Amino acid sequence: MRLKLTIAYDGRPYSGWQSQPGGNTIQDIIEQAIEAVTKQQVRIHSSGRTDTGVHANAQIAHFDAPNTVDMNPYNWVPALNTKLPATIRVMDCEQVADDFHARYSATGKTYHYELCMQPVMPPLQAGLAWHLPRQLDPATLEQALTHYIGTHCFKAFAANRGNETESTDYSRTITEAKLTTIDGGYRIIYSGNGFLYKMVRLLTGAAVQAAQGRLRLDDHLALLDQPDDLPYGKSPYCAPADGLTLFQVNYMT
Amino acid sequence: MRLKLTIAYDGRPYSGWQSQPGGNTIQDIIEQAIEAVTKQQVRIHSSGRTDTGVHANAQIAHFDAPNTVDMNPYNWVPALNTKLPATIRVMDCEQVADDFHARYSATGKTYHYELCMQPVMPPLQAGLAWHLPRQLDPATLEQALTHYIGTHCFKAFAANRGNETESTDYSRTITEAKLTTIDGGYRIIYSGNGFLYKMVRLLTGAAVQAAQGRLRLDDHLALLDQPDDLPYGKSPYCAPADGLTLFQVNYMT
Repeated sequence: MRLKLTIAYDGRPYSGWQSQPGGNTIQDIIEQAIEAVTKQQVRIHSSGRTDTGVHANAQIAHFDAPNTVDMNPYNWVPALNTKLPATIRVMDCEQVADDFHARYSATGKTYHYELCMQPVMPPLQAGLAWHLPRQLDPATLEQALTHYIGTHCFKAFAANRGNETESTDYSRTITEAKLTTIDGGYRIIYSGNGFLYKMVRLLTGAAVQAAQGRLRLDDHLALLDQPDDLPYGKSPYCAPADGLTLFQVNYMT
Repeated sequence: MRLKLTIAYDGRPYSGWQSQPGGNTIQDIIEQAIEAVTKQQVRIHSSGRTDTGVHANAQIAHFDAPNTVDMNPYNWVPALNTKLPATIRVMDCEQVADDFHARYSATGKTYHYELCMQPVMPPLQAGLAWHLPRQLDPATLEQALTHYIGTHCFKAFAANRGNETESTDYSRTITEAKLTTIDGGYRIIYSGNGFLYKMVRLLTGAAVQAAQGRLRLDDHLALLDQPDDLPYGKSPYCAPADGLTLFQVNYMT
């Protein structure tokens, strides 16, 4: 039986999603919880990695429950949560078709990025927002975000992971890059068919630079859709992980 | 120069406000920050203790700045914050009259208590709300809270600190005990002229018991204003520290 998990986490205490030899990743801890329940090693597959310090409201992962475990999907929620730390929670579990894949079946994602504009960062927001006590112009921020909407080559807004090849495709379609006002700051909402490594943080960093008057909007625009030799180079403004949350992963229904 | 600090903190990593030999209290850490700035040991006085795990939106404390430090009140905010962990922040600093006292000049306090009613506790709320997956009746909760309003003997809703005497005064006036709806749960707002040790948590615990149908409202009411020999005893339902925030301390202006 293939099961789809909806997982929320506070990214602060962890070294990101992806399993690694040193442990302390969200994937490792969930796989240990599944092993504690099933007494078997089971691999889970997520919609994609999140970096150290990045949060999730609804990360999606799937795994195949061993035949030896006869438990209905709903009961997996408390079974796993009793084995997990309070900072990682399985919010939902449902049975899906055997060809469902958390990553390859996904049609898009939504991220939230939070900016705290208060002079002093409230302690309960530490690690959950980018603190920007230096004022920025929201109209310019909004305008910069508008540039991202549509299908573009985002090579200048992608960090290298080390597995890039000449045929790596940097084209992505962003359907939403919207500024909203929240208590004490702003939230930027990004939706698109896919996001490259560190892309949301690089997009946010450049837009904030523009809104602080440190980057002209013309120069900002020039970073998008550059020819292969990247005449204007890669955007060097990476926003911190603190403000970023994987909010939702979309699938065909 | 006497200075009044407005302090916010995430109570989760600390052993409460009050200084103690083992350290790791909010008072200890702030006194160390003042010492780092002034090169002198300086004692601070708060509006009152908060327990381990209890948060503050605006705790108030005062101290006398040594004459050797010539710094205007506004500059104390960044000076102290650079010495403090991100989970403790000085939000404001202002000069007050030499007879101002954070505790004795206070005329009242407001506390917030948050209840999370979602089936699974979202990880970013872990330690910030009381998780009550078992349903409760909000109308009964509201009714139970109404009993607290007014001037009552709250001896049954006070934990013993060890310094109680026969003349300890358990009379307090509660001006507000209100239920509000928040995303995924409820917030209870308490305002009053003063609160006894663990009183807000004991009031909340008993009201929630009533709202869950485990305590009859008549029995709940009997706990208030008992004669000295406490025929109905002390209320044993103490809500966890997690949901509690010292929201505001009031002073004559």
